[in-house]
Amino acid sequence: MIQITFPDGKVRPYENGVTALEIAKSISEGLAKKVLAANVNGQVWDATRPIPEDATIKLLTWDDQDGKSTFWHSSAHLLAEAVESLYPGAKFWVGPPVDNGFYYDMDLGDRKLTEEDLHKLEVKMAELARQNNAYKREEITKADAVKYFSDKGDEYKLDLLAGLNDGSITFYSQGAFTDLCRGPHIPATGPIKAIKLTSIAGAYWKGNEKNKQLTRVYGVTFPQQKDLDEYLALLEEQKKRDHRKLGKELSIFTFDDDIGPGLVLWMPNGTVIIEELEKLAKETELKGGYKRVVTPHIAKENLYLTSGHLPYYKDSMFPPMEMDGVTYYLKSMNCPHHHKIFAAEPKSYKDLPLRLAEYGTCYRYEQSGELFGLMRVRCLHMNDAHIYCSREQFADEFKAVNQMYLKYFKLFGIDKYVMRLSLHDPAKLGQKYINSPELWLETEAMVRQALLDSGTPFVEVPDEAAFYGPKIDVQIWSTIGREFTLATNQVDFAQGPRFGLEYTTRDNRTETPLIIHRAPLGTHERFIGFLLEHYAGKFPVWLAPIQVKVLPISDKFLDYARKVEAAFLEAGVRAEVDDRSEKIGKKIRDTELLKIPYMVVLGEKEEAAGAVSIRRQGKGDLGSQPLDTFVHSVVEEARLRVSEN
Amino acid sequence: MIQITFPDGKVRPYENGVTALEIAKSISEGLAKKVLAANVNGQVWDATRPIPEDATIKLLTWDDQDGKSTFWHSSAHLLAEAVESLYPGAKFWVGPPVDNGFYYDMDLGDRKLTEEDLHKLEVKMAELARQNNAYKREEITKADAVKYFSDKGDEYKLDLLAGLNDGSITFYSQGAFTDLCRGPHIPATGPIKAIKLTSIAGAYWKGNEKNKQLTRVYGVTFPQQKDLDEYLALLEEQKKRDHRKLGKELSIFTFDDDIGPGLVLWMPNGTVIIEELEKLAKETELKGGYKRVVTPHIAKENLYLTSGHLPYYKDSMFPPMEMDGVTYYLKSMNCPHHHKIFAAEPKSYKDLPLRLAEYGTCYRYEQSGELFGLMRVRCLHMNDAHIYCSREQFADEFKAVNQMYLKYFKLFGIDKYVMRLSLHDPAKLGQKYINSPELWLETEAMVRQALLDSGTPFVEVPDEAAFYGPKIDVQIWSTIGREFTLATNQVDFAQGPRFGLEYTTRDNRTETPLIIHRAPLGTHERFIGFLLEHYAGKFPVWLAPIQVKVLPISDKFLDYARKVEAAFLEAGVRAEVDDRSEKIGKKIRDTELLKIPYMVVLGEKEEAAGAVSIRRQGKGDLGSQPLDTFVHSVVEEARLRVSEN
Repeated sequence: MIQITFPDGKVRPYENGVTALEIAKSISEGLAKKVLAANVNGQVWDATRPIPEDATIKLLTWDDQDGKSTFWHSSAHLLAEAVESLYPGAKFWVGPPVDNGFYYDMDLGDRKLTEEDLHKLEVKMAELARQNNAYKREEITKADAVKYFSDKGDEYKLDLLAGLNDGSITFYSQGAFTDLCRGPHIPATGPIKAIKLTSIAGAYWKGNEKNKQLTRVYGVTFPQQKDLDEYLALLEEQKKRDHRKLGKELSIFTFDDDIGPGLVLWMPNGTVIIEELEKLAKETELKGGYKRVVTPHIAKENLYLTSGHLPYYKDSMFPPMEMDGVTYYLKSMNCPHHHKIFAAEPKSYKDLPLRLAEYGTCYRYEQSGELFGLMRVRCLHMNDAHIYCSREQFADEFKAVNQMYLKYFKLFGIDKYVMRLSLHDPAKLGQKYINSPELWLETEAMVRQALLDSGTPFVEVPDEAAFYGPKIDVQIWSTIGREFTLATNQVDFAQGPRFGLEYTTRDNRTETPLIIHRAPLGTHERFIGFLLEHYAGKFPVWLAPIQVKVLPISDKFLDYARKVEAAFLEAGVRAEVDDRSEKIGKKIRDTELLKIPYMVVLGEKEEAAGAVSIRRQGKGDLGSQPLDTFVHSVVEEARLRVSEN
Repeated sequence: MIQITFPDGKVRPYENGVTALEIAKSISEGLAKKVLAANVNGQVWDATRPIPEDATIKLLTWDDQDGKSTFWHSSAHLLAEAVESLYPGAKFWVGPPVDNGFYYDMDLGDRKLTEEDLHKLEVKMAELARQNNAYKREEITKADAVKYFSDKGDEYKLDLLAGLNDGSITFYSQGAFTDLCRGPHIPATGPIKAIKLTSIAGAYWKGNEKNKQLTRVYGVTFPQQKDLDEYLALLEEQKKRDHRKLGKELSIFTFDDDIGPGLVLWMPNGTVIIEELEKLAKETELKGGYKRVVTPHIAKENLYLTSGHLPYYKDSMFPPMEMDGVTYYLKSMNCPHHHKIFAAEPKSYKDLPLRLAEYGTCYRYEQSGELFGLMRVRCLHMNDAHIYCSREQFADEFKAVNQMYLKYFKLFGIDKYVMRLSLHDPAKLGQKYINSPELWLETEAMVRQALLDSGTPFVEVPDEAAFYGPKIDVQIWSTIGREFTLATNQVDFAQGPRFGLEYTTRDNRTETPLIIHRAPLGTHERFIGFLLEHYAGKFPVWLAPIQVKVLPISDKFLDYARKVEAAFLEAGVRAEVDDRSEKIGKKIRDTELLKIPYMVVLGEKEEAAGAVSIRRQGKGDLGSQPLDTFVHSVVEEARLRVSEN
């Protein structure tokens, strides 16, 4: 008998060689049907593999990430089986699970797969899945393995085998297909109920463009058709909400080859959003007692040696410039500049807390392959601020920052968020982390308590702090459930001493302030990228680049349209006349495409009454109102930053 | 007889060998007394030098820049005479006139001059001036000149002589002093009535720090004591208004060695001014139909090759950065970035005029010796915009820009200004200027006409245009009469074609737009530097970093003070309590020094009445008002941007 320990700590005896599947059956048949694999002593195993000794196990189902991965890995084998069945002689390289599904790289000779071929493969996979063939694991000698693939004539698998040690080699087979594979796999093909092959791509063998190009087929599978339907609908929605697509359609931003990759050119529409966000931040920060500063985008190397960013952070910084025999860098963060402003004049306890804010523009080097729309860029406009405070003031300041986050989340309709409290690892003090063990414990406790006090949901993550102190990363989810890491909130007890920052206490001693780094709205780039997806481009009135489109039903009413436009502009509403000689139906359709919140339609009746007929984007006709009344209501909707989404 | 032609075109005959002074006397004795020198056939001559042939002459007085220069040059000789009289054996290098006076570099052996010595020299100069000794010109052979200075033992003059050709050498003598000098000089020392030696400096011989350090004495002289008094008062006022001094006293900006020279750190007080100016610009530009954009601070080299800034402008740009095998530059102007936004989407005549505005931050390389406070910096925040328009739209657009300048001048109380219209030189087409002779003439005529139409004072300056078109530099004078070159307004017909900018005309042709570059508020750096001097740091309410200081007469009234402060803050007024336990007299004096426009003084009477006692900076007590009334009046004063200065 062996002892099996369960996640809840309970221990039960089982026959030696029992499998996870048998253990699940011993609990309930229903559970057994859902088991895809098992975590055995920290490793993911086949649910059907005999357990030879005492073990801690966790049964893995579709709800576990490792369960999903195993499911998709097995689906990759199923794809290969279907390929081999339809295209005998196909050779296979590797077929791993990925974030959302799986792929398999294969050599199909001269065959180019079409969309229709994918469909045929899906049908064949479904047929093979229904056979509910078991995935069978077999340990095999290297010699036998080499013989198998030599006979089969698959030089790719032989290449893989060359790198493996005898005694560590396993085959997995299901139905008529056998693969060299470390596993693990699900018990059988039956649970693979819903199958979608999503795309075909070329992939150089081993990623080297001098090698042959293989065919890569991507797919995704689910245990229920309903899951696949939901997934495809989400994909469709994500495609519609892709911030790069919307950014182009709505003239928000652009890139240019002569400027450079990752360097956003904000067009007039995007700049309206930037300015509204900055207005929001400035108002909020003014009320929070922040003061604003403006600092240059470059500094001497020495500044970053003092801060400690050089040499550690050098790879993320832009290359240096040599001038007058001095080395300058583009700033990749605003903190050292702000510290210099703190230090420019002597400070006393009366000056604290000092909160210096700036929408600072930073430059960070990202590999060109990593650049992605607004999400990963090289020029970032950051909603930055640094709070210099005493230890006694820290908790209140930190809580106020948290409140600011929550206020913003509410305003933008962000219902799902979580804060990750990243802590130090005591084993790495003096290497990865500043060697001040007491300060680490003290500030971590302060931050933890502040989070608990404010009832903010958070998780703790060891060994992910900044080198100068514990930090909080804020993760938010868009309306369609995509996760974004938005902002950070960091405690810093290291930069103060490094920059010699000091203040005189009430009893005339000299103290070093604690520093809080915070950026609740993150960067314009990432936040506007998020908002584009979150709102699907349908910005609430206060953020909409054009708030009201004025549509005369014919050129006869152009004069009235100009009057209406002027009334809106005078009231500070961003309005624009569609003065094209088009039918009103086309004007309305085109305006809908631009996702402008309001249209006012003007004809004889409206002009006579000094009124406007109102249409709301996506909602249609809202009836008619006197012009003044509607102007006022748009002004108020913008002023109050009403969000309907 | 010779024929003398006067500036008004009249021609009169005179004896051969007549002097300008004699000519003046022939007109009037009064005029003769004022004559300092004369322009004879384009050269400045001694008024006492015989004119040997027909000539065009202009008599020069103190009102002419050349008259002043001659006066100061003669004053430098007078200084040297005084030095030789008090310190026999002194040796002399050069003594030219400068912008505001003159200096003389001399070798005084081991003697170090003191303030007291300067005063003694002034007294001696005045004594020598009263002798009214004539400045006598003598042509001398090189051999005689060398003998003179060899006998005198002045190796500096011998060094000068070594570089001169025989036959071109003249001596000038007055009283007991003789100098090697090209001249010209005033007739005699008598008119030098008011003398001030302003400073002593060290100056390496020939500017080479390996050479001996000479003593440089600066001075300034005037024909009347009144002029000197005014000049000294102005100097004093300029010193008080020095933007570097005020910038420090009022915590407007700072520099830091670790950031770098010429890179301004804007402190919270300076940032308030920046944000108020940007608000003004944005409001004005919004009303003017501008759209805002945001662009990065760097671009690939190729962008500047296209614009033509590279290689021509390279010395004024920051050094390049090499990244991923591509060369990047910090932008020294915003235009190419804006052109790229113009080009990002197809344009039609309906999109024109397109006015793209940005407070863009540019980086320009200035020699570190040229850097000067906010006036010459390396990082500039520019009130920039580019207007893309058709030729038909040009005149209206250009006039609208001019109107914007005039509106700003009025707002800031700038009464004296002049526009310099810089034109091309037809001889330099294809070298210094784009080779499009018709376009030059056409755009210059358009600009000239627009200036004439709007009645703006302007002067025309040949051969100072930008390479891409005619430009206007705007010169303004501060309240104390100092001149600043603030802003430019440029027409550009070259960048459009270079960037391939195009729009579709109404009749479906493809045209290239004209571009207007404009920056009415110049850069934050120079404009705020100007405003500091112009207002002597006493900013009008709308610009003042702190608008109201709240002064409780004792700690007993701190609660009421907080209430008053809150009422101001709520209304958007920048208010601050002086909560120090100081006497009210000291609080008032300290607030005066910070040049905060309003103080409200709070005691028992005020608290009981819900009122405030008001003091205006520099004006004293304004009596008491109910709190609400005064809050409202400050809000209005700021909203209307009232300027009392």
